[in-house]
Amino acid sequence: MKTAKTVDELRNEIKVFGENKTIGFAPTMGYLHEGHLSLIKRAKTENDIVVVSIFVNPTQFGPGEDFESYPRDFEKDAGLAEAAGADILFLPDAKEIYPVGSATIVEVEGPITKKLCGSSRPTHFKGVTTVVNILLNIVSPDKAYFGQKDAQQVAVIKKMIRGLHMQVAIVTCPIIREADGLALSSRNVGLKTEEREQAPVLSRALNIAKDLWISGENDVATLKTVIANEINTMPLADIDYVDILDYETLAGIEKIDAPALAAVAVRFGNTRLIDNIILE
Amino acid sequence: MKTAKTVDELRNEIKVFGENKTIGFAPTMGYLHEGHLSLIKRAKTENDIVVVSIFVNPTQFGPGEDFESYPRDFEKDAGLAEAAGADILFLPDAKEIYPVGSATIVEVEGPITKKLCGSSRPTHFKGVTTVVNILLNIVSPDKAYFGQKDAQQVAVIKKMIRGLHMQVAIVTCPIIREADGLALSSRNVGLKTEEREQAPVLSRALNIAKDLWISGENDVATLKTVIANEINTMPLADIDYVDILDYETLAGIEKIDAPALAAVAVRFGNTRLIDNIILE
Repeated sequence: MKTAKTVDELRNEIKVFGENKTIGFAPTMGYLHEGHLSLIKRAKTENDIVVVSIFVNPTQFGPGEDFESYPRDFEKDAGLAEAAGADILFLPDAKEIYPVGSATIVEVEGPITKKLCGSSRPTHFKGVTTVVNILLNIVSPDKAYFGQKDAQQVAVIKKMIRGLHMQVAIVTCPIIREADGLALSSRNVGLKTEEREQAPVLSRALNIAKDLWISGENDVATLKTVIANEINTMPLADIDYVDILDYETLAGIEKIDAPALAAVAVRFGNTRLIDNIILE
Repeated sequence: MKTAKTVDELRNEIKVFGENKTIGFAPTMGYLHEGHLSLIKRAKTENDIVVVSIFVNPTQFGPGEDFESYPRDFEKDAGLAEAAGADILFLPDAKEIYPVGSATIVEVEGPITKKLCGSSRPTHFKGVTTVVNILLNIVSPDKAYFGQKDAQQVAVIKKMIRGLHMQVAIVTCPIIREADGLALSSRNVGLKTEEREQAPVLSRALNIAKDLWISGENDVATLKTVIANEINTMPLADIDYVDILDYETLAGIEKIDAPALAAVAVRFGNTRLIDNIILE
């Protein structure tokens, strides 16, 4: 595996592989876990070259959020990425990504970025779409791989790709979970013992709602109450949001008639966890 | 010359030329004049394939501006573009460019889009950067050609290209002028006889300032007054702005120590004209 710290180094490393090779790209913020590795492994099976980026993007963190404390372990990440099949690891610093400051922004407007995480993190998706746009321009991949855990992020990025006519296919990979159901996240490392014990309530609550929906309940308000009640059985859980939306547009719905996304965000102490399940 | 109305048609026409051909691209709003044709001719000398787009972009016009009345003559344009060397003419409609509405925007923030035309047209450059980003993604040119007449537009687009790490070279072509100095513009057709007679005052005023600067005057306030006074000798001229700024950043300056841009916008009746000169 090669490592590149600058855009020029990265493009040179890609050139070494020769012309007309397909490129698969997994953009990450590092502190890699099995979720990230599943993206890299999938990319490896579908492309000639696999590029993995690790960049903890400052512009997608709001004031008071966990940019400084976001976990980092670039050395361990390099070993994991290589073992999963990465050919090139791109490790830029902020000056490399934002050479003229963050003066040019890419923003998906409308409810899709205002709901769910967009409500409690109002500038988050502007930072995400801008950095993903930049990384896609730098790497020029044929396919880019994202995890379903960040379902809203995937929906927003797909809308950006379509809205700006970017020539890349977005591949969404399933959520990877611990044995007790907790969705893997780099932020899980911040959970204290008791918080970690209670955190599986997110997936448990979502699955209860899914079972109820399968058995015939399609009223969104009822299903949201069921989810919230289940989460609230855990004393350390502090709900940020519980919502069920149209899966494609993230528009609000009252009944589930088309594929829907049930999504939750819950704080445990200083750690904010998200999870989701598709009702389809 | 081939004509394409959709993105798919355009990409297919480009493919017909074979692999690894260089593409030169001149994006226009049509009603082509010698200024546009100079871009196409220059592109022809530097690339294997020349793509010209004609798209009167609604999102760069503000409320009450001249979107509806902007001059259009697609048939004549096709003949002119072909004669100048265009290989493919791209004539999309708004639904083709904005399939999901104008929900994703690209914006260069800061003074560069707030000064000059950005002051009287506050949403203009957001529309320009968004549509240029989209067109560049659709065409994937090696080089894109713009006219120096829209000097601020060129500065903003260059900043977007650099900020988003887009892989395209921007080529700026000189202003083409009538014999009496009036910069060519599709909007000149809207000038009434008397307005047309007075319109060369823009270039005359800019040249007077340049001569004064060459002879040693480098105080910006003095030079701006000279330009404004000259323009105001024409009774039908209504100044929108007269400014002299750092050429690269468009930051305000008091003395000219580095290349500077002297730029003016003047209304004659319903027609708003712009012109500029570089002091370097």
